[in-house]
Amino acid sequence: MPEPITIDDAEDPRIEPFRDVRERDLVGRSGFIAEGSVVLDQLLQAGRFRPTAFLILRNRLEGVRSRLAGLPADVPVYVAEQKVFDRIAGFPVNRGVLAHGAAVGVPWSVAEILARAAATGRPLVVGVEIANHDNLGAIFRNAAAFGAAGILLDETSCHPLYRKALRVSVGTALTLPWVRGGTGEALVAACEAAGCRLLALSPSGETRLAGIGPTARPALLLGAEGRGLPAALMHRCETVRIEMQPEIDSLNVATAAAIVLHALYSAA
Amino acid sequence: MPEPITIDDAEDPRIEPFRDVRERDLVGRSGFIAEGSVVLDQLLQAGRFRPTAFLILRNRLEGVRSRLAGLPADVPVYVAEQKVFDRIAGFPVNRGVLAHGAAVGVPWSVAEILARAAATGRPLVVGVEIANHDNLGAIFRNAAAFGAAGILLDETSCHPLYRKALRVSVGTALTLPWVRGGTGEALVAACEAAGCRLLALSPSGETRLAGIGPTARPALLLGAEGRGLPAALMHRCETVRIEMQPEIDSLNVATAAAIVLHALYSAA
Repeated sequence: MPEPITIDDAEDPRIEPFRDVRERDLVGRSGFIAEGSVVLDQLLQAGRFRPTAFLILRNRLEGVRSRLAGLPADVPVYVAEQKVFDRIAGFPVNRGVLAHGAAVGVPWSVAEILARAAATGRPLVVGVEIANHDNLGAIFRNAAAFGAAGILLDETSCHPLYRKALRVSVGTALTLPWVRGGTGEALVAACEAAGCRLLALSPSGETRLAGIGPTARPALLLGAEGRGLPAALMHRCETVRIEMQPEIDSLNVATAAAIVLHALYSAA
Repeated sequence: MPEPITIDDAEDPRIEPFRDVRERDLVGRSGFIAEGSVVLDQLLQAGRFRPTAFLILRNRLEGVRSRLAGLPADVPVYVAEQKVFDRIAGFPVNRGVLAHGAAVGVPWSVAEILARAAATGRPLVVGVEIANHDNLGAIFRNAAAFGAAGILLDETSCHPLYRKALRVSVGTALTLPWVRGGTGEALVAACEAAGCRLLALSPSGETRLAGIGPTARPALLLGAEGRGLPAALMHRCETVRIEMQPEIDSLNVATAAAIVLHALYSAA
């Protein structure tokens, strides 16, 4: 591990990437912020991302030292006491471990993810208008848990490396292949061209989840909570229903995805 | 609907229950706060809770007028412009509909909920050390979706009517029977005495979820994320595993509950 550098002054310019992390979204401009040791572990093993700097609470340093053992010497490890740390981050930080990360090499492509799905037979997840960071993070966590081949997100969905989405994903947004860009129509067309079986959830879906059975190349389309998928996309899919109590508001989108992905995983 | 009362001054003493709702937890002292129209609908149909006052954004009034039509005349409906509303609530409110609510009559009891499970054959959920409001709210939402008979919470779990838990529950914490109190041991003992089949989730569980099949009187025990259930409780349960990718962090507790409750619901 590189020699830790003590930061005594919250205005120290070296810790700029960690300043006011809750207010700023670094994503798309200059890397991203990974919070907590679970996400850190994913960052350290991610092939397409790497840590570029750390900010660690003094009393957490020993706890993460072994994890950081293999870090190259040019990745600074800053250490601060709680008071300075909180002033830098702009809020009382519980986890005490922040990493700044950046992409390495080329990002994943739609073609690459479709090829991965074809080679493995594992499901794809396609997200359209997923604007809630918690939901997006939870979709990643669940997709990774049930072995999805990757996630395709339209350009209106939020960014998986936004701090909160990344945290809720328990770091899987750094390891599960994904792309974000283009329209939902374009993503669906790409899945169709690749021979995917397009599934969309609907309370009035034509197929019961239990009736899907083992299936080759499933692609599960997810839309915004409440509004759901645009009708034009829904019409291009086989609709699936999760049976539940009729009088209750429909399930959270990430929870519904977990139930379907679990069913596909168990049936495979 | 009672005649709306315009509030021009954020310091007006009549709107005291709505002041700084994000910072204060009214629960246990003087009722609770319900946010948004989905939760409002549940409050209006809940048998054991009733609204005691409303604070509504001026431009949302027409949208909720029909819902409030049947309100007794002694329930005040306060209306405020955005600026005053935000100053009262202490943060920029998007939903624009707040209700203050209170319990009516006697609360549910453990015996009553066990009897309900016995009469219906529907599952119980038992939560131990569920300290995260989002998780607790999501557990309620999922339990309601899959027809659980009720939820038993130990005294260390957080309160289901805390504003954020209630919001995430989409109001089901007002309609699904629950109790909170006592130790996990006492709740488990009560379930055992009532002849429940105690199920606990564990990545190394002895039974695959698919192997449970239709079952009478299941009681699903849930513990804190990360730490899980105390070992002493886990030993009194049949352990169940949700099969998933081995290298991934385990599922969120509410998501895992949804998968199990869906399986029980589908098998019933």
